Amino acid sequence: MRRLRWQVAAGAAVGLALALEALAPVLRWLWGGRRRPRHEVLFFPSQVTCTEALLQAPGAKPSAAPAGPGSPAGCQCSLPHCESALSRLLRALLAARASLELCLFAFSSPQLGRAVQLLHQRGVRVRVITDCDYMALNGSQIGLLRKAGIQVRHDQDLGYMHHKFAIVDKKVLITGSLNWTTQAIQNNRENVLIMEDEEYVKLFLEEFERIWEEFNPTKYTFFPQEKKTQ
Amino acid sequence: MRRLRWQVAAGAAVGLALALEALAPVLRWLWGGRRRPRHEVLFFPSQVTCTEALLQAPGAKPSAAPAGPGSPAGCQCSLPHCESALSRLLRALLAARASLELCLFAFSSPQLGRAVQLLHQRGVRVRVITDCDYMALNGSQIGLLRKAGIQVRHDQDLGYMHHKFAIVDKKVLITGSLNWTTQAIQNNRENVLIMEDEEYVKLFLEEFERIWEEFNPTKYTFFPQEKKTQ
Repeated sequence: MRRLRWQVAAGAAVGLALALEALAPVLRWLWGGRRRPRHEVLFFPSQVTCTEALLQAPGAKPSAAPAGPGSPAGCQCSLPHCESALSRLLRALLAARASLELCLFAFSSPQLGRAVQLLHQRGVRVRVITDCDYMALNGSQIGLLRKAGIQVRHDQDLGYMHHKFAIVDKKVLITGSLNWTTQAIQNNRENVLIMEDEEYVKLFLEEFERIWEEFNPTKYTFFPQEKKTQ
Repeated sequence: MRRLRWQVAAGAAVGLALALEALAPVLRWLWGGRRRPRHEVLFFPSQVTCTEALLQAPGAKPSAAPAGPGSPAGCQCSLPHCESALSRLLRALLAARASLELCLFAFSSPQLGRAVQLLHQRGVRVRVITDCDYMALNGSQIGLLRKAGIQVRHDQDLGYMHHKFAIVDKKVLITGSLNWTTQAIQNNRENVLIMEDEEYVKLFLEEFERIWEEFNPTKYTFFPQEKKTQ
């Protein structure tokens, strides 16, 4: 009887070990494959900080003078050199290695413009959709991006192309209330969500491609209807 | 030897059953507690549809005339009575049972205004934060909400209160590029995310409470600095 008990106990231990081994991939899949997607929320206004270290082109020469406390090598400016909402937004964009889709109502921030040009220089495929009313305003980055060879398309509608989103490497969606202007970055209450989430990315990418095709320049008319002022 | 094998096999089966039973709550927790949060994306412009069925107050009398095809009982209007981006946004708001926080740059949509008043009448605690420049514009809903007894606070800053988000029952975040105006709903390219996600809700609720306190009327000055026109 004692032997029988021992045998059953040993069998149970083997069974438990086998069950755990068999379930391990399922548990790993549940734990890993269904992990919560990475996400971040940025609130603005952003503290005004120096973003030179992020925006230096690979071949740029750093200054020979010693750097100030907390500043990156080569930067002598008096601005703080810490993280800010803008620097975190720049980092999220500059992570692009293959593609960047931008769908932006207004785009006049010089730092964000430089980041986009830097990505273009690095060989990232950049495409920009914008609103025709705002692309020619003073300080707009759109003309500079076009001069640099970046493809830009715009609406000719009565309504506004009012989206403010970016898609990095078809993996990360950046979207919110923020127009990419210095006024908005430094003075407004704004939010930006950075979401590594394939379902959101898919939906926004479909919206981007839909608009990209609709705003194909072959469809432009040269004397479109006047926009409503509201 | 044959008996021993049988005993070990029986023990293994018992062990497997025990292991599965012991792991069941863990599997349920992984499957249920860590389920992907509900989310939806609405893209605008929205088709113009009839939203009367959603917005009728509980005591309102439906018309005695027979309803048109596809229309809810009592509605005779010629608009389509199907779902649209606006009707889905209204549904998400009207699901509120306890609280609704609104943080909106511009709010002039009559349908969205009626939905908010309906929630207030049902006893939902509604709080509104808005931008001082836009709350007095023609067609703004802000005055009507205040007349109905809803609490409204606004900025006095040089920058804009440019958020466009709502929080339903402290459980669902509604945020995007859409200002709550008929112009934007019917004509603009816009996006709205509806997210049942406690981490996003927590961050946006903290932002709401921060601004709510900052815009406490006891802190208002009656001759604030003039806003920049940009």
